[in-house]
Amino acid sequence: MAPITNGRHLFNEVPTGYPIPGRTTVYDASQTIDLDCAPLDGGFLLKTLVLSIDPYMRGRMRDLSKTSYSAPYELGKPIFGFGVGVVLRSEHPTIKAGSHLYGIFLFQEYTIQSDAKWLEVVENKEKLPWSVYVGAAGMPGQTAYSAWKKFAQAKRGEIVFVTTGAGAVGSQVIQLAKRDGLRVIASAGSEDKVQFMKELGADVAFNYKTTNTLEVLQKEGPIDVYWDNVGGETLDAAFEAAAKHARFIECGMISSYNTAPYLLKNMMNVVSKEIKMSGFIVTSIFSEFKETFYTEIPAMLANGQLKYREDITRGLEHVGEAILAVLKGTNVGKSVIVVADH
Amino acid sequence: MAPITNGRHLFNEVPTGYPIPGRTTVYDASQTIDLDCAPLDGGFLLKTLVLSIDPYMRGRMRDLSKTSYSAPYELGKPIFGFGVGVVLRSEHPTIKAGSHLYGIFLFQEYTIQSDAKWLEVVENKEKLPWSVYVGAAGMPGQTAYSAWKKFAQAKRGEIVFVTTGAGAVGSQVIQLAKRDGLRVIASAGSEDKVQFMKELGADVAFNYKTTNTLEVLQKEGPIDVYWDNVGGETLDAAFEAAAKHARFIECGMISSYNTAPYLLKNMMNVVSKEIKMSGFIVTSIFSEFKETFYTEIPAMLANGQLKYREDITRGLEHVGEAILAVLKGTNVGKSVIVVADH
Repeated sequence: MAPITNGRHLFNEVPTGYPIPGRTTVYDASQTIDLDCAPLDGGFLLKTLVLSIDPYMRGRMRDLSKTSYSAPYELGKPIFGFGVGVVLRSEHPTIKAGSHLYGIFLFQEYTIQSDAKWLEVVENKEKLPWSVYVGAAGMPGQTAYSAWKKFAQAKRGEIVFVTTGAGAVGSQVIQLAKRDGLRVIASAGSEDKVQFMKELGADVAFNYKTTNTLEVLQKEGPIDVYWDNVGGETLDAAFEAAAKHARFIECGMISSYNTAPYLLKNMMNVVSKEIKMSGFIVTSIFSEFKETFYTEIPAMLANGQLKYREDITRGLEHVGEAILAVLKGTNVGKSVIVVADH
Repeated sequence: MAPITNGRHLFNEVPTGYPIPGRTTVYDASQTIDLDCAPLDGGFLLKTLVLSIDPYMRGRMRDLSKTSYSAPYELGKPIFGFGVGVVLRSEHPTIKAGSHLYGIFLFQEYTIQSDAKWLEVVENKEKLPWSVYVGAAGMPGQTAYSAWKKFAQAKRGEIVFVTTGAGAVGSQVIQLAKRDGLRVIASAGSEDKVQFMKELGADVAFNYKTTNTLEVLQKEGPIDVYWDNVGGETLDAAFEAAAKHARFIECGMISSYNTAPYLLKNMMNVVSKEIKMSGFIVTSIFSEFKETFYTEIPAMLANGQLKYREDITRGLEHVGEAILAVLKGTNVGKSVIVVADH
């Protein structure tokens, strides 16, 4: 078979504020690949099916000199993130052709690689769409599940405040909290998302763009658990409305990824209210919960006990817009790039 | 015996910044008491010997409408805090004349009270000065001991950064950390205090007023444990110099008690470095450690295994200056008011 285009999405420029589609990252169609004949050199040929767009990717778009928990993207090279693909050919001792793999993918249509360290086989007995394996059954779902189990110390009747409650992580946190018998306050940035959070079971759901967060928390709180995906002013409101001995699960601070930091006025409440703040990266804690996660969650997603919502974009050329959307919160549900159907 | 003056130190005005001696609080000598004949009504007559001056007292000097972990002082009434006194007379079923009591005292020379809920008997087998029972063997020592045991998760060879390392709490934290085999970086605000921290065993001791904290931490860190008594810019430096999975023990934030909050720029490191921040109030956690504390600490203070330093002021009329000194850090060692010798 003749070589075909192997489309890629490249990191092109370090952004100063929000990333700019077509400038911060660019689509590139200059490479080709011969799917039948390209030498594998003991490795395997992987076809990308779905790729995950997540807020943490903004942190990788930095100058190489800055260190952080996530490896930075390299200028001129494909960005990378979570994905699912299918093995087309293999000379690898443990990777079989036809297998579906989940893990860290380059943002390109096809890759030949010898190292499967960041990949694992997805059985998918539940026949879920592959996109779910980068969302509710993938890293975001794992984030919600493992940090909730590890840090919430949830007691029936307590009150939790969940930010980005309509997003990939927050929507699962709401449902886990309701299953544990908590009263759930949840925020998001549109009326449509508020409606979705109510469908997920949130007792109080509000649009933080039109409703004052602190006023809601003062009326509906004090809060025993705070799921923080946003930081900044919302975190400050949570400090103010926290109950004694509140647990703050520090998952992300999207409000500060693209803009200047916010002046926290209530930081002292960490001491005075004896708050426990637990920052975490899912990859550090997931192994402890992996077995129960895969036993419980995909089945509950398949039978509808757990709800999820996806925002699907087709084609690697639209990655830039999809990243900007998750950083601005204009996506509705888990943002996924579908590169190929099978 | 004729009635004698019963001097008191009263809360007089809510301060806006630093408290002003003689205005925020005032000494009052208008009351008298007849030590022999004053009716006890089933209670006991307590003579105040020593009173503790601590930074948290600033938090009580607030408008009654503001809630916080500590009860506010009432205008026109004596302030209160930790103290040791001796029972002169008693009709109380469990409190005996001649006993020494530790606990919450009104800042006045003599009190008649029926409720001993906030008081406990001090045996003092080690014959320590009573002042030590409001310092290294009292609330500040208990703070250092119990939070270190509960939150530090200290491992031999790790690095800890202790702020206010020459103070009542920090000086004991330094010594506990050294006993656990950690490398200790410690800061305070004068050359004299730096010298004292070195005597306590600090491996790196510096004056934060003349040396850049972040530069020290970047050279000597990263830090695995941070003992925070100051908050603000120092906390921000600790975020920046924290090791992965660092534990931040949030004991106080004195930098913000009298001035505007500081703009934290590195708060996101809580997430990216998976930092665990534990805010606490000693009275919530001490019961778990009380038995071992009283078994170990007074004896180690008596035999010199644990060092401490005191800043003694004689007389209730000087309470205002003493409070201002601990808030400005001009005291050297645990600030104690000696009201009477015995």
